[in-house]
Amino acid sequence: MGPVITVFARSPDRGRGLARDMAVRWALEEVGQPYATRGLSFAQLREPAHLALHPFGQIPTYEGEDAALFESGAIVFHIATRHAGLLPVADPARARAIAWMFAAQATVEPPIVERSMALLTERDRSWHAERLVLLADRVRKRLGELAQWLGGRDWLEGDFSAGDLLMVAVLRRLHGSGLLEAVPPLAGYVARGEARPAFVRAFEAQRAAFEAAERS
Amino acid sequence: MGPVITVFARSPDRGRGLARDMAVRWALEEVGQPYATRGLSFAQLREPAHLALHPFGQIPTYEGEDAALFESGAIVFHIATRHAGLLPVADPARARAIAWMFAAQATVEPPIVERSMALLTERDRSWHAERLVLLADRVRKRLGELAQWLGGRDWLEGDFSAGDLLMVAVLRRLHGSGLLEAVPPLAGYVARGEARPAFVRAFEAQRAAFEAAERS
Repeated sequence: MGPVITVFARSPDRGRGLARDMAVRWALEEVGQPYATRGLSFAQLREPAHLALHPFGQIPTYEGEDAALFESGAIVFHIATRHAGLLPVADPARARAIAWMFAAQATVEPPIVERSMALLTERDRSWHAERLVLLADRVRKRLGELAQWLGGRDWLEGDFSAGDLLMVAVLRRLHGSGLLEAVPPLAGYVARGEARPAFVRAFEAQRAAFEAAERS
Repeated sequence: MGPVITVFARSPDRGRGLARDMAVRWALEEVGQPYATRGLSFAQLREPAHLALHPFGQIPTYEGEDAALFESGAIVFHIATRHAGLLPVADPARARAIAWMFAAQATVEPPIVERSMALLTERDRSWHAERLVLLADRVRKRLGELAQWLGGRDWLEGDFSAGDLLMVAVLRRLHGSGLLEAVPPLAGYVARGEARPAFVRAFEAQRAAFEAAERS
């Protein structure tokens, strides 16, 4: 019996796989661990039963025999410590892959999410257009630094790792913005991630869930 | 010989210990690991030698015999895996402490940093006052959820861990904003962290470095 993860009952991105359960699904597919999902409405996210599992009322959570967890980065890390394939076994390679996990979530994601939030919540504010320019500049700065690091490599450090998994999951939020496409080495990096069979299986699973919810 | 960490040559917060080296200094003090620092100017952060160490041109970095790392969360985690005292040894307690490490950096810190950035960089924008209200609301939401979780506990999960260390380091950025003070359980939580002898030693070390730089 595999773990249970919580997901949105109805994908707010209409099956594009941009919610945070995607990274967890992908990690589980990479290591070949079957899992079940429990869909939650937005109202259910604020209920005491869910807040006991996730203090900030978000998805995903992870309930396994070994631990009940929240935070997608921590869940991916937990999966990577229990199964081979997502983290090198020894330092320094292991520590560096973990550094990229934190970098994806603490350094690269915030300006990307900030820009998405502005598009969602500040469209009717007088400052929207002017501020969007600043936000795009902040994203471009990080993308430029990341492309500089990547150079001609396939992955951030040697083989594909949980660091790449989280970084690709974060960068995918930029699809359609033009920002990722403007940096060909990063667009290629994301495409390599999306071409992995485990990614494809995870993506299809969340899209199938969205389509089933639409029909219901 | 202990590790070398990079820090700002001149503390931009004038010795208040709000830069990201503070969490790393604190972690090293908690485990009793001596360390050396290398101060960098803002110009040096963008030099190739530093970008090879930190792809995003920030501080802190960590150079030890075991690994060269960047990202404060990853460095604290690395210290916690090599020394006793900052992480429980077994799951589920260990995995949950790690979940709080990610939560501190990926969920609680972004709105706090966003607000600080607006105060620093958007003061002359027409939207500043109006937007500051939204930003404070976002911070208050996270603080309320965190206080709800904490309840009457001293620490997030049982004993003090690297999760508390990163969370307190993040919340300290709110000192003087009135936002932390408005949530007494969290103000008490931060005060408990700041009262730890290891925190005091780390704080004094970075303040002494600032004062030495001022005199030079």
